[in-house]
Amino acid sequence: MGKLILIRHGQSLWNLENIFTGWTNIDLSPQGKEEAKNAGEIIKRNKINIDICFASYLKRAIRTAWIVLDNCEQMHVDTYYHWKLNERHYGDWQGKNKDETLKEVGEKKYWAIRRGYYESPPKLGPNNKLHPKFDPNYKNVDPAVLPSGESLEDSSKRVVNYYFEAIVPNLVQGKTVMISAHGNSLRALIGYICNIPSIDIAGLEVPTGVPHIYEFDGNQNLMEHHKLE
Amino acid sequence: MGKLILIRHGQSLWNLENIFTGWTNIDLSPQGKEEAKNAGEIIKRNKINIDICFASYLKRAIRTAWIVLDNCEQMHVDTYYHWKLNERHYGDWQGKNKDETLKEVGEKKYWAIRRGYYESPPKLGPNNKLHPKFDPNYKNVDPAVLPSGESLEDSSKRVVNYYFEAIVPNLVQGKTVMISAHGNSLRALIGYICNIPSIDIAGLEVPTGVPHIYEFDGNQNLMEHHKLE
Repeated sequence: MGKLILIRHGQSLWNLENIFTGWTNIDLSPQGKEEAKNAGEIIKRNKINIDICFASYLKRAIRTAWIVLDNCEQMHVDTYYHWKLNERHYGDWQGKNKDETLKEVGEKKYWAIRRGYYESPPKLGPNNKLHPKFDPNYKNVDPAVLPSGESLEDSSKRVVNYYFEAIVPNLVQGKTVMISAHGNSLRALIGYICNIPSIDIAGLEVPTGVPHIYEFDGNQNLMEHHKLE
Repeated sequence: MGKLILIRHGQSLWNLENIFTGWTNIDLSPQGKEEAKNAGEIIKRNKINIDICFASYLKRAIRTAWIVLDNCEQMHVDTYYHWKLNERHYGDWQGKNKDETLKEVGEKKYWAIRRGYYESPPKLGPNNKLHPKFDPNYKNVDPAVLPSGESLEDSSKRVVNYYFEAIVPNLVQGKTVMISAHGNSLRALIGYICNIPSIDIAGLEVPTGVPHIYEFDGNQNLMEHHKLE
């Protein structure tokens, strides 16, 4: 039956600097690369054969997928990338220091946006050059569906939508699928798979660099899940 | 109309040591990685947007594809791997020193196999542990079609077959396709595309690390091709 391996990318260069990253295309830090290497070795040690791999459009998740596949000696696994697996879009907060943003908007608003489910950060204006519609990497995506700032609900919806579109058809065929993505996109996916109430999804901790495996029966019911080690 | 970018991987660790590599899964040397980086920068400088990428099952071609995509800032391009793009299988010669093999078999036989079209090196026996059917990377391939030693004709046939199966459908749609592969698999492909007589294919020089672009009209006729620089 189908198996799903989820891996959250490790430390990025902006994690180090305490900046809101969202869709900004920041690479892994050296520590983040080490975390990915370790995840690959764990998959190798568990003798898991990956049939197909998915990652977001962001290089920190893509590089994590590559390093994992390299270190479990499965570089030849077909790999698909999709913006719907991207991190939550942090709108106008992207590129800003987290502590300074907290001071600027106040504790209440800050935490409602960061840990609430329905609150969105201030959106990027339609002419803001940081809008993904101006990024050549998204040239094949309908600009009308590209976000300019998302609540956790917004990002959850597109992640779960992609899960049904692209991931489930592989799981139903009994394949072992790996997804390399981000804190909020994996939080949304795990929330859906494990049937966690929306209100609790923001609080779900997804550790970086540690692969988790989810096993399904033929009817796509979750049979069990655990951390790989 | 469709565009095809061909890139031959650069120096591998066994090129350095003058050993027949074939399907042995040897990585790039540091110089090979530099060559790939340079190729990526050339593609970036030429402002080419790649729609889809193909590579062989061998890590020296896969790493070349990754380094190219990284350095032209297109890491998110969906990438497919196939054994039919692998290097020619060098049978029992794989892992042997080229000079020693020449001494052992004599100039005439050696060059007939290396530069002829129809001659095959001695094949691996069916129980030889080096046969690809024992390699877990090929577990999804019918063992009956996996080679144990190929003439240039044998490897050309499967490369051209894969070209029709997987590449042409993308070119017909007007996509820009990149293929990262090997001396003999690209020689075969270029021979087919440019309508070069079989007898001349072995002599075709395919430089490493230099992307070449082939442009087609809507009927899959080759319009022009040139080196990117």
